[in-house]
Amino acid sequence: MPQFKRVGIVMGSDSDLPVMQEAADILKKFGVSYEITVCSAHRTPDLAAEYAKSAESRGIECLIAGAGGAAHLPGVLAAFTVLPVIGVPILGKSMNGLDSLLSIVQMPKGIPVATVAVNGAANAGLLSVQILGARDEQLRNAFRRYKEDMKAEVLEKAKKVEATANI
Amino acid sequence: MPQFKRVGIVMGSDSDLPVMQEAADILKKFGVSYEITVCSAHRTPDLAAEYAKSAESRGIECLIAGAGGAAHLPGVLAAFTVLPVIGVPILGKSMNGLDSLLSIVQMPKGIPVATVAVNGAANAGLLSVQILGARDEQLRNAFRRYKEDMKAEVLEKAKKVEATANI
Amino acid sequence: MPQFKRVGIVMGSDSDLPVMQEAADILKKFGVSYEITVCSAHRTPDLAAEYAKSAESRGIECLIAGAGGAAHLPGVLAAFTVLPVIGVPILGKSMNGLDSLLSIVQMPKGIPVATVAVNGAANAGLLSVQILGARDEQLRNAFRRYKEDMKAEVLEKAKKVEATANI
Amino acid sequence: MPQFKRVGIVMGSDSDLPVMQEAADILKKFGVSYEITVCSAHRTPDLAAEYAKSAESRGIECLIAGAGGAAHLPGVLAAFTVLPVIGVPILGKSMNGLDSLLSIVQMPKGIPVATVAVNGAANAGLLSVQILGARDEQLRNAFRRYKEDMKAEVLEKAKKVEATANI
Amino acid sequence: MPQFKRVGIVMGSDSDLPVMQEAADILKKFGVSYEITVCSAHRTPDLAAEYAKSAESRGIECLIAGAGGAAHLPGVLAAFTVLPVIGVPILGKSMNGLDSLLSIVQMPKGIPVATVAVNGAANAGLLSVQILGARDEQLRNAFRRYKEDMKAEVLEKAKKVEATANI
Amino acid sequence: MPQFKRVGIVMGSDSDLPVMQEAADILKKFGVSYEITVCSAHRTPDLAAEYAKSAESRGIECLIAGAGGAAHLPGVLAAFTVLPVIGVPILGKSMNGLDSLLSIVQMPKGIPVATVAVNGAANAGLLSVQILGARDEQLRNAFRRYKEDMKAEVLEKAKKVEATANI
Amino acid sequence: MPQFKRVGIVMGSDSDLPVMQEAADILKKFGVSYEITVCSAHRTPDLAAEYAKSAESRGIECLIAGAGGAAHLPGVLAAFTVLPVIGVPILGKSMNGLDSLLSIVQMPKGIPVATVAVNGAANAGLLSVQILGARDEQLRNAFRRYKEDMKAEVLEKAKKVEATANI
Amino acid sequence: MPQFKRVGIVMGSDSDLPVMQEAADILKKFGVSYEITVCSAHRTPDLAAEYAKSAESRGIECLIAGAGGAAHLPGVLAAFTVLPVIGVPILGKSMNGLDSLLSIVQMPKGIPVATVAVNGAANAGLLSVQILGARDEQLRNAFRRYKEDMKAEVLEKAKKVEATANI
Repeated sequence: MPQFKRVGIVMGSDSDLPVMQEAADILKKFGVSYEITVCSAHRTPDLAAEYAKSAESRGIECLIAGAGGAAHLPGVLAAFTVLPVIGVPILGKSMNGLDSLLSIVQMPKGIPVATVAVNGAANAGLLSVQILGARDEQLRNAFRRYKEDMKAEVLEKAKKVEATANI
Repeated sequence: MPQFKRVGIVMGSDSDLPVMQEAADILKKFGVSYEITVCSAHRTPDLAAEYAKSAESRGIECLIAGAGGAAHLPGVLAAFTVLPVIGVPILGKSMNGLDSLLSIVQMPKGIPVATVAVNGAANAGLLSVQILGARDEQLRNAFRRYKEDMKAEVLEKAKKVEATANI
Repeated sequence: MPQFKRVGIVMGSDSDLPVMQEAADILKKFGVSYEITVCSAHRTPDLAAEYAKSAESRGIECLIAGAGGAAHLPGVLAAFTVLPVIGVPILGKSMNGLDSLLSIVQMPKGIPVATVAVNGAANAGLLSVQILGARDEQLRNAFRRYKEDMKAEVLEKAKKVEATANI
Repeated sequence: MPQFKRVGIVMGSDSDLPVMQEAADILKKFGVSYEITVCSAHRTPDLAAEYAKSAESRGIECLIAGAGGAAHLPGVLAAFTVLPVIGVPILGKSMNGLDSLLSIVQMPKGIPVATVAVNGAANAGLLSVQILGARDEQLRNAFRRYKEDMKAEVLEKAKKVEATANI
Repeated sequence: MPQFKRVGIVMGSDSDLPVMQEAADILKKFGVSYEITVCSAHRTPDLAAEYAKSAESRGIECLIAGAGGAAHLPGVLAAFTVLPVIGVPILGKSMNGLDSLLSIVQMPKGIPVATVAVNGAANAGLLSVQILGARDEQLRNAFRRYKEDMKAEVLEKAKKVEATANI
Repeated sequence: MPQFKRVGIVMGSDSDLPVMQEAADILKKFGVSYEITVCSAHRTPDLAAEYAKSAESRGIECLIAGAGGAAHLPGVLAAFTVLPVIGVPILGKSMNGLDSLLSIVQMPKGIPVATVAVNGAANAGLLSVQILGARDEQLRNAFRRYKEDMKAEVLEKAKKVEATANI
Repeated sequence: MPQFKRVGIVMGSDSDLPVMQEAADILKKFGVSYEITVCSAHRTPDLAAEYAKSAESRGIECLIAGAGGAAHLPGVLAAFTVLPVIGVPILGKSMNGLDSLLSIVQMPKGIPVATVAVNGAANAGLLSVQILGARDEQLRNAFRRYKEDMKAEVLEKAKKVEATANI
Repeated sequence: MPQFKRVGIVMGSDSDLPVMQEAADILKKFGVSYEITVCSAHRTPDLAAEYAKSAESRGIECLIAGAGGAAHLPGVLAAFTVLPVIGVPILGKSMNGLDSLLSIVQMPKGIPVATVAVNGAANAGLLSVQILGARDEQLRNAFRRYKEDMKAEVLEKAKKVEATANI
């Protein structure tokens, strides 16, 4: 498993990769080192426990975990670490994402999981940037620029829509 | 922890006891030995893993696990044992039981949890009796008598309703 | 109807076969004999009753029933037998599987149905293996190996994802 | 069981009586003879089948069945009779009535159940009056008067609300 | 508008025709005369009221109304007639049919709508056959034969599935 | 029925009065004349049609309609008038308000209903003030002051919470 | 940004344009001037605030805002203006539109948003026409003609369906 | 407003205080300074914007925002700051918390809100401790002890349940 990274991205199944890749892309964009792997709360429970337990000592500062259905991975990782865990509910074929959302967000008192939108892996990446940025002004400023860029992008699109509408 | 019992009843929080007691009551009624304890997938994850891993060697034949909210306990136990695990979704203050139901029933391929109704601990007890009875004719016959008794009870109630209605 | 099999797989409609075949495939893989048929709780209710009533005497140890919509088949079978019944909610065109899930899992006290995930027929097959394995060490060991293989598969996929991510 | 009645009211549990009594009250009001009993699709399945099978020959013209949770009773009765079956979903402690509603209304092609609102037993009674009235002008006229009375009642209430509001 | 038919099939929009045609097909099969038209509770409310008010005098014995979204048509027709009204919730692009189902089934006391499954127009046709058959033995017998044919069809399919499974 | 008022408040049942009174209270506060009555889309459909048809000629500028369950009243009124109709979904005993919300908001193209929150009658009153205010600067200014007052109220509460917290 | 228009159409993302264009098309049809732009409550919050604050002074009489997911745009605009705000929930990839519907309609007391159906932008346009028409007889009459045209269209379709059905 | 605190707790209404107090209690327990106030995204939007914009410069490292219904507060704060924002959905009288949960969690790409369970304010407090602890070993160790204490508590309860069960 990769070492000495700041963020650990874990997914319950390799079929979640297209969604979870967006978290990795965000971290790349911000120059935040990360590791990414597959680790199932149900099929490799010991590994999941081990992964979460060792994360802190390996220098990881924040975990991002994506899972679908009865999505236990984020909660299981949170059980084994004191690091903040961000949960990404993955959309499945039934239940419209409600199953994975509720399985991740409705955690009992004592073990929070910071849940983002269904398939919201990009936001999970950004949230980890914000968390690392809580005490890292440079990262906070990078996120500020990211928000400025988004704003500029929206303004650009607004102009196009306004122009199209006036034809 | 108690030993040499046939069924292990576990709940995520002692606040689940009033519901889960119904599973125990069923087992008492059928003379099936059981142990009952509290074990949280999130607050005592190592214990949950240990409990599930050791269950088979302690002679346990079937596990019953109740949990509410992001109800991971049944799935987490199932991850660590080859014994059948019965999941009881516990009704919470929000979401009408939908959160615990989906968190328990929507398990990924490979790790089934035999899910019963929200707060359906009595049926979890009965299902464990049926599972033990799959190869135990005496237990199967006891369950047959239980069903006969239920039938008689319904007939009794039917008579009362019919009588009341005709007044 | 086939005889002297250990597991009976029943579906409410032949359109459920692509899903329910996964239960059969699991049983084949584990060398557990099974019969598979179509039997509607609504269109052939006498047959369903007869099927369930005779299952025990034909040597069946566990039933697996899949149905969609107002999915009554698992519950109806459970009403007529003391054998454990596993219910598979089938995803339909409306309601996202919530209708079949609730119709199967919300059984009243006295008649449990062991419910698995929407379209979770493979897990129904595995659950029947676990149930038969409750007293069959060989089957239990086969399931243990199955879980080991799943673990190996996940590790394999983890490596691929880790490698891809590092390019 | 009572005989030579026009409508059969059946409920899955005697705890459903407070709701189902409203159907009986409507029939009393319209002078339509009825029988009322308890009959569980799961605890007394043979009885339910027998009840439905014999209904037509006993002169019953329409069945009303109320049930909660995985509410199979209306569908099971419909499977065994050619008479129209009206289903009343009963509100339970979880799921807000969605479980019984979907379990009753989402019937497969071939076996309809005429479903009314959750706890809507009074409307089930009225619907049976309408069904009997399809070829019975007197009953149709009685229902017409009932609707006129409702209208008068609403007008009365409208006056009170208007008066109160103008104070 | 067509006259002297026994069943009136109405839909809120011509886009509902592919679904509602199944009700007509059932009636054709049973030799029950019907009329079919489009009539919106919202776009042609006077027409809807007129249609329902005149139905009884035109010899109609039962109405079938299909609508999607905030599906008011069945309830609006029921408000203006003493005839039984069968409601067919039509699946739309959002809400999975839950909107039309609840808009049709949750009628207030006094004005029932006999609701069938989402897109269940065929069952609406069959339910109207059952309603007409409440006092028409010939129709009741035709429905009995229909059920026998369904049973035979299921048995045929069962054989195919059994055969396929044994290869 | 009252005449020459600017807003018409209608509810499907007098049991909705405690909720709908909040709309009246808002209008009183803003000095906007209103009439309030009970009028059922199902029990008094002709009256509902007549009410909506005559509203414009009676000087009404906006309608507010509250209803529960299969809440057709707002949509039915909207069908018969060109005035804007505001719909208030009323919370019932089952379905958590989802039935009335969907029955009101999911209107087909051509006949909008301006829907507010479940039991949100006060906001319906405010929305009617905003609608009347679209061309009435005085009313718009009154609403501006109302918003200023709300702001002041929040600031007051903020101070209290801050003070309490610092003890 | 365009000026001196009567209606402002705003969307949270340019991907909402295909839906929101229907509101613009309605306004074009009614000859009501409008401006259309993109403005995100989250990516350009200051702009959204500014847009809403300045709308009244720019002569805007009504706002239409469409957004998906956690759809805050309509509510945020409503917070900054006394003009009526119409909210259009946009259907997303998960949650079937329930997320955007609830995020828009469940506004707290004091700040209403006039919510229309999921993807109901055409109705948002019509509702704005009705709101402007509350004191503009010409517009009200245009809407009356629009409703007449819809009626004629439905009658036309009814004829076609009736004809097809009789072949 | 209080200054130089590490965590800012904000709620949309003072009626949310009983829930949000649990976040404050956690921070007190961990010795993390915090400020707590009421600030409505809809009633005091400028204040909310100002609060979020100034948070970073006032030394705040993390925001916790609780809101019910169309719960926009967390998202609105997130729009105006680069600090991580934790959202607490508050349970209301309708919709079982689903409205506030979806309004908070389903944020668009670019503006994440770290969502916890419905009424999960205690976990919001803990999550902020974890976020501050990402680079603060002392706080991380305090959280580790907190988890150890929870574990001990569960073991204590387990003993009691085991004892009770054996009587």
